[in-house]
Amino acid sequence: MKKFALLPLFVLSLVLSSPVIAAQQADPAKGLFLPGDVTADLAKIALEAAVKKAREQGTLMNVAIVDAGGNLKAFCRMDGAFLASIDISIKKAQTARSLNMPTTQLHDAAVPGAELYGIEVTNGGMVIFGGGELLKDQHGTIIGAIGASGGTVANDVEVAKADAAAVLASFK
Amino acid sequence: MKKFALLPLFVLSLVLSSPVIAAQQADPAKGLFLPGDVTADLAKIALEAAVKKAREQGTLMNVAIVDAGGNLKAFCRMDGAFLASIDISIKKAQTARSLNMPTTQLHDAAVPGAELYGIEVTNGGMVIFGGGELLKDQHGTIIGAIGASGGTVANDVEVAKADAAAVLASFK
Amino acid sequence: MKKFALLPLFVLSLVLSSPVIAAQQADPAKGLFLPGDVTADLAKIALEAAVKKAREQGTLMNVAIVDAGGNLKAFCRMDGAFLASIDISIKKAQTARSLNMPTTQLHDAAVPGAELYGIEVTNGGMVIFGGGELLKDQHGTIIGAIGASGGTVANDVEVAKADAAAVLASFK
Amino acid sequence: MKKFALLPLFVLSLVLSSPVIAAQQADPAKGLFLPGDVTADLAKIALEAAVKKAREQGTLMNVAIVDAGGNLKAFCRMDGAFLASIDISIKKAQTARSLNMPTTQLHDAAVPGAELYGIEVTNGGMVIFGGGELLKDQHGTIIGAIGASGGTVANDVEVAKADAAAVLASFK
Repeated sequence: MKKFALLPLFVLSLVLSSPVIAAQQADPAKGLFLPGDVTADLAKIALEAAVKKAREQGTLMNVAIVDAGGNLKAFCRMDGAFLASIDISIKKAQTARSLNMPTTQLHDAAVPGAELYGIEVTNGGMVIFGGGELLKDQHGTIIGAIGASGGTVANDVEVAKADAAAVLASFK
Repeated sequence: MKKFALLPLFVLSLVLSSPVIAAQQADPAKGLFLPGDVTADLAKIALEAAVKKAREQGTLMNVAIVDAGGNLKAFCRMDGAFLASIDISIKKAQTARSLNMPTTQLHDAAVPGAELYGIEVTNGGMVIFGGGELLKDQHGTIIGAIGASGGTVANDVEVAKADAAAVLASFK
Repeated sequence: MKKFALLPLFVLSLVLSSPVIAAQQADPAKGLFLPGDVTADLAKIALEAAVKKAREQGTLMNVAIVDAGGNLKAFCRMDGAFLASIDISIKKAQTARSLNMPTTQLHDAAVPGAELYGIEVTNGGMVIFGGGELLKDQHGTIIGAIGASGGTVANDVEVAKADAAAVLASFK
Repeated sequence: MKKFALLPLFVLSLVLSSPVIAAQQADPAKGLFLPGDVTADLAKIALEAAVKKAREQGTLMNVAIVDAGGNLKAFCRMDGAFLASIDISIKKAQTARSLNMPTTQLHDAAVPGAELYGIEVTNGGMVIFGGGELLKDQHGTIIGAIGASGGTVANDVEVAKADAAAVLASFK
């Protein structure tokens, strides 16, 4: 058993002495993400705008923010909001970012016979109805995306657009 | 292999002496699930109501019960019932709970061109035809859901509704 | 829209008039499963034996029964039992049946350097610790398997063995 | 495409007039989640406590909160935090809740030869090192869990414990 008893310490010391971790302790985030990518502060602005809009609507939303790389940055589910919308809101944001367009635009394009019919089964599941919108900075550069799910599609689109607008406004 | 021989006993004694397990031995379920969630007793009532209704119909059903969190609570497959319906019945129950509505309501909403077209590929697969119904208590709070699969959709819906009614009746 | 309006009725009539469904209405299960396979009645005996044993132990179990084909036949989760054990109990039963041995036997065989090292990542995840046991009839024919999960591994093994014994006893 | 043009409006009006949605507009969350489950307000407290602790540590964390059913409730990733930790933090929280114990307790139990060796491949992947902690209310009832990932395991555990403490303190 001795050999195993030391393993955790050994691994721990490896990790602690790695250059990445050492650098993080001086200035944790330096060099670790692209300048201009959606930040936690922006994600917070987006989530708050979403919840505010949902309350105006009387809806219960799941809201997901992904960064420019399509990776989850922030998420919240309002009390009582659909459990199904955890996945749907995340996938809406990922779909919007990965195709660089609002998911609303996929709705007609993915019906039988239309150009992208069947696209929804790629990428582990894409969402082809509205509620995913792009996040852009003041120069129009895509910095991430938002997905909202919890009401009618019209509700979801309105929430996602309110988020994107709040993020854009924060640059001005 | 000798060096491993002592480990299981060692770990076992660790586990047995942990506060979590100790508390469980005094009162096993205390604090481990939210009051009001569907219980094993209620699930049994639901399964029995399902089998009774299926026998009246002359159908062979798979029946799945999930709790308020959408996690499988109980399941049974009648002799000769469809193997495909194992997954379908579980997903019907999870779909109903995760959208807080009977799966029948998704049937029209998910056809090509309709609002939720494509929703079935989210969440690892949702079921968009009838046979998933919500389980509610006497106050109308959602405590879980049931999925029935094995006959025509009309059969499945009838079985699932009979279950939900049996659960509701048990509160009165 | 007309074209779509008729579709549900059309499909329904197809289903209703299919020979399979028609046969089911006369004698629903005839020809639909192998003689000797685990039945719903046997599964019920197994689940009840499991719950009885768990109560003696003061543990909270998830118990899954699979048939000779490795397909889920019945499942129950006691109130407060681990959510993780939904999947673990089902996989224990499937592992036992798919290798025709109790999962306890995999424990030593799957450690690094042993013969089956790494087997647990096949089949979408196998369980390589105890709690999966075979169900056999009076002739020793494997008719299914049981997986129990919720206590220590020793607890789980005891519950699964009690189940297998109860099923075997029911043949005598 | 004309023939589809009317469908969305048609379905939308169906949805808007459904009793479920109508009830939601009066009191959106009524009956839709079990009383006592982790709320969005509690999740926010947990995320803020996590970020505060991470800043003290000089680490960059991903933090995930799941509810009593193991479903994602809230998530944030600090700028520059590991992308791998999106999944790890979510799975840490789900692992803790689904086994009702901190993930630290799995570390020794899952080494080769120990009792739960191989458990990490079940449930679509569990995390067997520290950083997942339970969230409890003032009565000791489990109301969810938190997963923190981004530093050394010791960092992660410290962050997760700070979160759990902040949630518990909010009840007093």
